[in-house]
Amino acid sequence: MVEAKTGELMEKIVSLCKRRGFIFQSSEIYGGLNGFWDYGPLGADLKRNIKEYWWNTMTRFRDDVAGLDATIIMHPKIWKASGHVDTFSDPMVDCKTCKGRFRADQMNEIPCPQKPSKMSSECHGEKTEARPFNLMFETIVGPIKSDENIAYLRPETAQAIFAQFKNVLETSRQRVPFGIAQMGKAFRNEVTPRNFTFRSREFEQMELEFFIKPDEAIEAISGSVAVPSGPGHPGEPQANWGWQMWHQYWLEERIRFYENIGLPRTTLEEYWQKPEELAHYARATVDLLFKFPFGTQELEGVAARGDFDLSQHQRHCGKPMTVFDEELKAAWVKLDPARQAVLKERFLQARLKYLTRSGEPAEKANDVALAEAEALTKGYYVPHVIEPSAGADRLALALICHAYCEDQAPDEKGKLESRVVMRFHPRIAPVKVAVFPLLKNKPELVKKAKDVQALLTPYMAAFYDEAGAIGRRYRRQDEAGTPFGVTIDFDTLGEKGPELKDTVTLRDRDTMKQERVKISDLLALLQQKVL
Amino acid sequence: MVEAKTGELMEKIVSLCKRRGFIFQSSEIYGGLNGFWDYGPLGADLKRNIKEYWWNTMTRFRDDVAGLDATIIMHPKIWKASGHVDTFSDPMVDCKTCKGRFRADQMNEIPCPQKPSKMSSECHGEKTEARPFNLMFETIVGPIKSDENIAYLRPETAQAIFAQFKNVLETSRQRVPFGIAQMGKAFRNEVTPRNFTFRSREFEQMELEFFIKPDEAIEAISGSVAVPSGPGHPGEPQANWGWQMWHQYWLEERIRFYENIGLPRTTLEEYWQKPEELAHYARATVDLLFKFPFGTQELEGVAARGDFDLSQHQRHCGKPMTVFDEELKAAWVKLDPARQAVLKERFLQARLKYLTRSGEPAEKANDVALAEAEALTKGYYVPHVIEPSAGADRLALALICHAYCEDQAPDEKGKLESRVVMRFHPRIAPVKVAVFPLLKNKPELVKKAKDVQALLTPYMAAFYDEAGAIGRRYRRQDEAGTPFGVTIDFDTLGEKGPELKDTVTLRDRDTMKQERVKISDLLALLQQKVL
Repeated sequence: MVEAKTGELMEKIVSLCKRRGFIFQSSEIYGGLNGFWDYGPLGADLKRNIKEYWWNTMTRFRDDVAGLDATIIMHPKIWKASGHVDTFSDPMVDCKTCKGRFRADQMNEIPCPQKPSKMSSECHGEKTEARPFNLMFETIVGPIKSDENIAYLRPETAQAIFAQFKNVLETSRQRVPFGIAQMGKAFRNEVTPRNFTFRSREFEQMELEFFIKPDEAIEAISGSVAVPSGPGHPGEPQANWGWQMWHQYWLEERIRFYENIGLPRTTLEEYWQKPEELAHYARATVDLLFKFPFGTQELEGVAARGDFDLSQHQRHCGKPMTVFDEELKAAWVKLDPARQAVLKERFLQARLKYLTRSGEPAEKANDVALAEAEALTKGYYVPHVIEPSAGADRLALALICHAYCEDQAPDEKGKLESRVVMRFHPRIAPVKVAVFPLLKNKPELVKKAKDVQALLTPYMAAFYDEAGAIGRRYRRQDEAGTPFGVTIDFDTLGEKGPELKDTVTLRDRDTMKQERVKISDLLALLQQKVL
Repeated sequence: MVEAKTGELMEKIVSLCKRRGFIFQSSEIYGGLNGFWDYGPLGADLKRNIKEYWWNTMTRFRDDVAGLDATIIMHPKIWKASGHVDTFSDPMVDCKTCKGRFRADQMNEIPCPQKPSKMSSECHGEKTEARPFNLMFETIVGPIKSDENIAYLRPETAQAIFAQFKNVLETSRQRVPFGIAQMGKAFRNEVTPRNFTFRSREFEQMELEFFIKPDEAIEAISGSVAVPSGPGHPGEPQANWGWQMWHQYWLEERIRFYENIGLPRTTLEEYWQKPEELAHYARATVDLLFKFPFGTQELEGVAARGDFDLSQHQRHCGKPMTVFDEELKAAWVKLDPARQAVLKERFLQARLKYLTRSGEPAEKANDVALAEAEALTKGYYVPHVIEPSAGADRLALALICHAYCEDQAPDEKGKLESRVVMRFHPRIAPVKVAVFPLLKNKPELVKKAKDVQALLTPYMAAFYDEAGAIGRRYRRQDEAGTPFGVTIDFDTLGEKGPELKDTVTLRDRDTMKQERVKISDLLALLQQKVL
C-alpha cells in the first residue's frame, strides 16, 4: 500500500514537471533517449538558482575557495591515474539466447525480454560469466580513429580539480587549507537509468575539493591535533584542526546549505559508510540522503580522501603535487627530536602504505617514502583532501519532491478548491514574484503593473500575467512555485483615497495572506526575502 | 611588422591569462590536449558573468523568451534531421607516405610532418582524394557497442530548441512571436584547433531561436508587411513586422548587448553574407566580427533561417511542428478572395520549394504543400525563425583582448610605473570590488575592512587583500580587472575627526581617481555601477 501511494505521488510529480515545463524527456519527439532529461523554462531557472547558490556559498561568500571551470573531455591519462579506466565498471552478463546484456547485480529485478514472467536470472537462456563494463563514455579526439586517440567524457568533475591544483594554487593567492570548487556536466553510461532524473546518464555535479594539511604537519605546528568533541557544527576553522574536524565541518556546512534552500535537517539522513564499505584510500565517507518518494537515496557524499588523489596524479604525470608550508618548516626545527622521529615515522608509514597499494615495487616504495618523509621535515607535503560532492539534478529533484504539496485555497468567491502548490524556498524558486493587474482591460492598471514589473526585473525574475480571473492566476503561480504575488488594483490608482495610492497587495504563496505594501518599499522587502 | 606586433600582444595576453588564472591549458600536467581549455578562478567568473548577463538579457529582462537547458547527448535522429550527419564535415586528405591527415583547404598552410620546409600540399607524399570527415564527436549509449547505439555530442545547442519547441510552447504560455534561449557546451572535432581558445573542440554557445509568423500570415493579419526603412534599431516590436524587420531588430539588440558589456560598436564589424555564401535555406545571415589581435573573426551570427529547422524535424519525427494562430484564422476569412489566392499561392510555392529541396518526390511534395497551404487558411503554419547564435568562449576572449591595456600609474611615492590593467566592464568583471585595510597589523583596520567586505559580499564579488603595500595591491587588482578598490584607513576609524569617520576611499581602476565615500552609501553606489 505504501508503495502504491509513493508511486502515485511520483507520477503526479513527473506529470507536473512535464505539464508546467520543469522537466521534459530528452528528444521526446524521436521517442526519447533513456537516461537523458531536459529542463524546460521553469526547470532551467530552478537548476540555475541551485547552482548559483552553491557557487556563491562556496566561492563568493568565503575567502578560502577558488573556482574552476574545466573541460568535459580531458587527457585520457587523467582517468588512468584516477583509477576510472581500470575499475569504474559494472559486472555485466550476456544472455546467449536473447542477446540481452544485464547488470549481474540486477538480474533478480529485470524481467527476461523473451519471457517477461521470469526474471532474467531465472530464465533458461545460456549466460556468460560476468564481465566488467566500463561506465565511461568513449569518443575519439582528432581526425584519426585509433586507440591512442580515445578520450572519455568525464564521469566526475573532481579530477579536473586535482589536475589543475598547481595552476590554481599558483594563481589564486591561496594557501593550504583552501578549496577549489567546480560545477559541470558529467556522464556515466548507466546500464539501467531509473527513478526519473535521479539516475541519469548525463548529469551535473557540484564538487568541492578542500585541501588540508596532513595531521602530522598540524601536530608539528600546533602541538596537537583537534578532534571532534561530539556531533554538530564545530564553528569557525582553527589552525589545529585535523582531517576529522574538517570532515565534520564540511558535513555540517553542507547540511546548512540544504537548510538554506528549504530542505530541513529532518528531510536528510546521514549514512556513515562502514569500514568495509569505504574505498581503500578513504578515511571516512558520509552520504547525505534524501527521502525521495521512490526511496531514501544519496544527494551528496562528504568524503575524507587522504592524499590519494593528488598522489596518484603525482605518480602518473611525474610532476610534484607538493606544497611548501613555511609554518611547518619553521615549527619542525623547534620540535624535540623524539617528537620529530614519531611524526616522521607515522608520515613515512602512511606514504609507504599508499605507495605499496598503488603497485610500486617494495624497494622503490621504500626509497620514495623515505624521501617524502624527509621532505616533510623541510615543509613539503602532498595536501590531504575533504570532498563534498553533490548532484545538481538530484538536488533539483529533491527540491521538487519536497516542494510538491496539495492543499485547499479559496477561489474568487471564497469557496475552497484544491490546489497544487510548489513550496520552493524563495532563494531557488524559478520565478520570485508575479505581478498582476486586477483587470486586463483597464489601461491604467496594466500600465502600473508593467511599471512594477520593470522596477523589480533588474533584481529578480518577475513574471507579468494579466490573463484570467485573479484566482486562476494565483493557482498558476502556486504550481510554478512563485513565492510572492503582487496585485495592482483600483486602490493602487488612488481611487479609494490618497492613503492607499501607490500601494499594492503582496500575497504569500504558502500562508495565502495578503498585506498592503507601498510600491516604494516593495523592492527592498522582496530582495530581503529572496536573497 | 604589424603581424609581429599583434603576435607579441597575443603572447602577452596568453601569458597573463595563465599567470593570473583566467585560462589554463586543459590537462596541462599530462602535456595538454589540443583544442581544450580550462577556466581558472578569474576566468570561470568572467565567463559566468557573461553567460548570466546573456541569460538575463534574453529571458528575465523580456517577457517573450523562455529558457531551456537540454542534454548534450540527444537522439541521433536529431542530427539526421538537422543535416549534421550527412553534411557537417570537412574534406580531408590522407598522405600515404607520412600517414598524416590534413584538411584539404589547409594544405597550403600546414607544413609536411616529414619535410617541414615544404607545405603538405607541395611535398611528394602520395595523397588520397579528399574525403568528408564528420566533425561530430561520436559515442555509444548503453551497454552494447553497435551502430544503432551511436550517438553524438551536440555540435550546436540550437537543435534541442527545435526538438523541444512544442513542449516549451505548450508549457510557457507563449505565443508566436516568441523565443527560446539556451546556453551550454557544444563539441566539434576540429581538425586544426587554433588561435588560443578561439577555435576549440569543446566550447560553449549562447543561442536564441526566435519564432515569428510567416510573412503571408503577417500580410493577412496586418494588411501589409513592414520592412526596414534604413539601418539602425527599429524600436519596439510591432505586429506588422516581417522577417526582415525581426532580423534587423535582433541584429541591433545583439549589438546593444555587446555595447552593454564593454565592446563598443566600433570594435565590431558586420559582415552580411553574400547570396552565394548563404545556406540554401537561409534568407539572410549577418556575422558580427571582432578585431582580435590574430585577425577579424566571428563572435556571433544572426541568421534568418525561414521555417527550415522546424520543417525538417516535422518531416523526420512525423509530428506536426505547426502552431495555431487565432488572429490569422480570424483575419483570413475577412480577406477578399483575390488576396487570399495570392497569399496562398506564395505560401504554397515556398513550401513546395522547401519540400522538393528536401528530397520529397514531386507528387508527394505537391500534395503536402497543397495541404499546408490549405492549413494556412485555417490558421496553421510552421513558424519561421531568427537565430542569434553567439560563442561564450569567443566572447570571453574578445573581452580579455579588448580589456588588456598597458599604461602608467603612480607607485607609493607618486613615481610613475608601468602597469597592466584589464579594463573589463563592471558588469562582467570577475571581481567587482577589492577591499583593503591600509595596514594589516592594525586590528581595527583589519576588522573594519572585513566588515565592509561582509557588507558587500551578499550582493557582489568582493575580494579582501591585506598583503603588501597598497600600491602593489592596486596593481594586482588592475591585472585582475577589478573596477573598484575600497581602502580603509585611519580616517575611517575617526582618527582625523568625526567628519571622515566611517568613510572610505573608493578608487576607480581606469581613472585611478579616488573619492571619499560613506560606508553607508557604498553598497547602493557600487550596486548601481555593477548591475
